[in-house]
Amino acid sequence: MRISSETTSDGVSERHFTVDDIPGVLWSPAGAAVAGPLVLVAHGGGQHKTAPGVVARARRYVTGCGLAVAAIDAPGHGERSRTQEDEEFSAAIRQRFASGEPAWPLISRYNAVVARRAVPEWQATIAALRDLGLDGPAGFSGLSMGGVTGIALAAARPLLTAAVLGLTGGDELAEAAARITIPVEFLLQWDDEHVPREDGLALFGAFASRDKTLHANAGRHLDVPRFEVDSSAMFFARHLRAG
Amino acid sequence: MRISSETTSDGVSERHFTVDDIPGVLWSPAGAAVAGPLVLVAHGGGQHKTAPGVVARARRYVTGCGLAVAAIDAPGHGERSRTQEDEEFSAAIRQRFASGEPAWPLISRYNAVVARRAVPEWQATIAALRDLGLDGPAGFSGLSMGGVTGIALAAARPLLTAAVLGLTGGDELAEAAARITIPVEFLLQWDDEHVPREDGLALFGAFASRDKTLHANAGRHLDVPRFEVDSSAMFFARHLRAG
Repeated sequence: MRISSETTSDGVSERHFTVDDIPGVLWSPAGAAVAGPLVLVAHGGGQHKTAPGVVARARRYVTGCGLAVAAIDAPGHGERSRTQEDEEFSAAIRQRFASGEPAWPLISRYNAVVARRAVPEWQATIAALRDLGLDGPAGFSGLSMGGVTGIALAAARPLLTAAVLGLTGGDELAEAAARITIPVEFLLQWDDEHVPREDGLALFGAFASRDKTLHANAGRHLDVPRFEVDSSAMFFARHLRAG
Repeated sequence: MRISSETTSDGVSERHFTVDDIPGVLWSPAGAAVAGPLVLVAHGGGQHKTAPGVVARARRYVTGCGLAVAAIDAPGHGERSRTQEDEEFSAAIRQRFASGEPAWPLISRYNAVVARRAVPEWQATIAALRDLGLDGPAGFSGLSMGGVTGIALAAARPLLTAAVLGLTGGDELAEAAARITIPVEFLLQWDDEHVPREDGLALFGAFASRDKTLHANAGRHLDVPRFEVDSSAMFFARHLRAG
């Protein structure tokens, strides 16, 4: 891990880093050692590691719960280079939006492609952050494309302690969810124009976790209410902070 | 309203009162005027106004949010006398439990009977509490039988500002829910042995509220996790406290 910059504002330290050429950001309480539990935040499709929604969640977890938070750019997103496959999916998805055809089947396939590439990158990032001193429990927060990656990561190896996931669905994900037993808070938008409601409910049902909570809010895919950030902070405080 | 006793412990004042012979309890921050917003807590079937779950919620809303909280005994519950109808339903429900037959259809009918009798009692209680100084917005918190009463009360007249409801379902309730537009946090137990999951989901879907959130937790009817008390406190703080 190479740390390229370090700044501090409003009680939060922000370090930009790279792990195997993957650019990331680490937020942590200013003036304290980098140690203890960690939350990994995965951005959604078309977003990047410092998109406003990612930064808002990160700052809330740092200042509200004293947790460290890390985000990386997903494959084909942010500062990352884009493969031919990325370009083709992007163009096809844009075309669906433009023509008004249903885009979800294609988005869903692309999310799975990104997740497959992202899982080893998150594993390398977690290992590097552990070496840096963040060797406590690790939480994961990701919705939509970030949720697909989170499900793949949690199903692959027992690196995570608790996860906030959501805004996705589908049979392939349900198979992976059936291997996940960590506590899960799952977000679903009741009027999601992309993810069929039944697919989201079925995915929530598929998690093998004994401790799982579904938060379904009225509204469309991007209308997740801001108070869900507070709720996820309470979830991580419950599961990542001892005592 | 007649106040029969007043005690204080751990920062919470507890007043026992009667309104038209209905016994109730008012909890409020100790050493402060009885004023501002209010949460009404309706207990579940077989419970009463000072059942542990009611008291836990009340103390949390008082000490965590500075809200006043009131509870009354439902018809045929707690200190209230029981009618022939109450006795018959109770006996029939007990018999269903003993024989292992599905009890929910009968519980559901009894909950509707109780709600019909409870609505004017809650209306009288709210009016008496307003006269006492609690003339701010009023929230309502009720699950299972208490949820059925809450839906009837919210649908009847616009007395309530926000409600935490849940652990129930059914077509009659869905009709009432379609007339409710206040913010709702709706609790559902994913493995409820009484309420069919589809009925609970359909009821959540039926609320006309633009601001509505479903919290579905793994577990049976009585397994609602304790952290939902904190979540409901945040919900009421958002909707009942100005600014």
